[in-house]
Amino acid sequence: MEFSIPSIDEALFSFAQERLDSLTKPKGSLGRLEEIAKRIVAIKGERFPNIRRKAVFVFAGDHGVTEEGVSAYPKEVTYQMVFNFLRGGAAINVFSRFANMDCFVVDMGVDYEFGDYKGLITKKVLRGTRNFTKGPAMTKEEAKRCIEIGRDLAHTYADFDYDLFCIGDMGIGNTTASSAIIASLLSKKPKEVSGRGTGVDEEGFARKIAVIVKGLEVNKPDPNDPIDVLSKVGGAEIGGMAGFILGATEKRKVVVLDGLISCASALIAYAIEPKVNNFLFAGHRSEEKGQWVALKHMNLEPILDLKMRLGEGTGAVLASIIIEAAIKMYNEMATFDEAQVSKKLK
Amino acid sequence: MEFSIPSIDEALFSFAQERLDSLTKPKGSLGRLEEIAKRIVAIKGERFPNIRRKAVFVFAGDHGVTEEGVSAYPKEVTYQMVFNFLRGGAAINVFSRFANMDCFVVDMGVDYEFGDYKGLITKKVLRGTRNFTKGPAMTKEEAKRCIEIGRDLAHTYADFDYDLFCIGDMGIGNTTASSAIIASLLSKKPKEVSGRGTGVDEEGFARKIAVIVKGLEVNKPDPNDPIDVLSKVGGAEIGGMAGFILGATEKRKVVVLDGLISCASALIAYAIEPKVNNFLFAGHRSEEKGQWVALKHMNLEPILDLKMRLGEGTGAVLASIIIEAAIKMYNEMATFDEAQVSKKLK
Repeated sequence: MEFSIPSIDEALFSFAQERLDSLTKPKGSLGRLEEIAKRIVAIKGERFPNIRRKAVFVFAGDHGVTEEGVSAYPKEVTYQMVFNFLRGGAAINVFSRFANMDCFVVDMGVDYEFGDYKGLITKKVLRGTRNFTKGPAMTKEEAKRCIEIGRDLAHTYADFDYDLFCIGDMGIGNTTASSAIIASLLSKKPKEVSGRGTGVDEEGFARKIAVIVKGLEVNKPDPNDPIDVLSKVGGAEIGGMAGFILGATEKRKVVVLDGLISCASALIAYAIEPKVNNFLFAGHRSEEKGQWVALKHMNLEPILDLKMRLGEGTGAVLASIIIEAAIKMYNEMATFDEAQVSKKLK
Repeated sequence: MEFSIPSIDEALFSFAQERLDSLTKPKGSLGRLEEIAKRIVAIKGERFPNIRRKAVFVFAGDHGVTEEGVSAYPKEVTYQMVFNFLRGGAAINVFSRFANMDCFVVDMGVDYEFGDYKGLITKKVLRGTRNFTKGPAMTKEEAKRCIEIGRDLAHTYADFDYDLFCIGDMGIGNTTASSAIIASLLSKKPKEVSGRGTGVDEEGFARKIAVIVKGLEVNKPDPNDPIDVLSKVGGAEIGGMAGFILGATEKRKVVVLDGLISCASALIAYAIEPKVNNFLFAGHRSEEKGQWVALKHMNLEPILDLKMRLGEGTGAVLASIIIEAAIKMYNEMATFDEAQVSKKLK
């Protein structure tokens, strides 16, 4: 697979900085909002960028490792929550309505046949991954297909005037897979990058870490081959998100990451093409420490820190509201000259 | 002055907690949003609370201490920025439009005669405070009038179906006054609660601290008498905000604080009636360390941390968007039963 990730327009940074410094506020006083606005200018390559349409894509998939008792919830919650998304009752529905953003669900690998629903994009690669304590979760071909599907999806929606994408996940067992990916790609011990997921108890947490250790021993994923890592200990929805990030950045779109799972997928995309991080925003700092490690590796600083650990794209969508506020500030504020306000004394 | 601050409806905390735990998400997984939603339920005393109308009030006033060279900007910026607010060109205008919130400017003590403007509420108590290095900034009567005006204003708008108020400030020199208030009320050294304000240089910063030290020495404000502190080293806009907080909480309204100046005003309100903190939300962690000290004293945890230091209510308005998202989550999400999603395994 070949990707051609564009450069961001760094020449516009100085224009954006001058614009920000001309606005009626002390220089730098809007802190991270100013940094966000500058990055959007450079990503879109426009002096006064606009966000036209926005969407959140929730990638769903099941995980064979749930057999090992790594989650606090039964596996069928994955498909049940997909129905909840389609009916509009989940947190991501509430937040995307509030943020005036479209919400799509992508079935990458749920172990359930949904049929046709409005808002459901069916791209099933498999009906749940295989239990990675007994062998690879997916074949290399399946992993590649996930990436290609995600990429194509991003290209399609990019052409429909979407300028900002949030990504989120649904998949019981997928914090286990994500921590395994991060441990493998960044050569960390599983316990350094694992958390409680949906809320396992002490015993379940110990089991989860043992399962990741075993998965890495059994499969020996190659840390220098992100597709190998994705196929052996990853998941279909994680592959879809990684492909989506690559496809969206090929089209110079803003991508807002969510929690652990989306950050594991970003790490795969980043391992394939490090330039993707120019287009990524870390929506929030989640309660999963593996996410912090992944974000740090990609040099991304979270926008929000609200002690959230839900997934679905909820942190990404809330952060996208702050991103939009930053762009509006940049575009709409009056300058010192326009407002006839006196400048700094010296 | 007598205030009757109601209790919040703590009996509803358990109802709100049950509601939150019945929603289709792992328990507690929306972190601080859950805590925010619970507090709003108890503040409004309604099982399913709604925020009907929202407004930000920007309190403006001039400061005699600007004579001492404590600010990076000339004094006339206060009235010039008021015009900028009235024309819609300031950051607070952009953010309040974005948040679908009304924006009012309250002239508590600007050294300029504006005349009539839509959106300007004229309540001028004086044309700028007196230089507090030479004596009290205001008389006790003036300080009391500021509080009364703020309180009346909150009562009036509370009756117009506003359920959430953000407060913000405009006043060149007012970080100096605010740090002096905080130092006095909490018995801190001025340097422990002072920052760079709009951006003074090293020399200006040293001067600012010396000015606060002198103001406290000359006036000897009584830390046990918040009106005395307000009158001697405070400001008209700070008094207006303190009164507004007291009036809004009398009417069981949500008040979102902004940066240093609004937090200094909250500290005065809190010293008068400690129960006000049940109704307050800390919008953001500003770049002024005096704000952190004030928030900690009132047991308030900031919602956002975006390295902002602009004032005007900008941090409060952005945070209010997160508060609104939390309420929508609480009201609109489906329960496990409604969505037929399986519950936690044990």
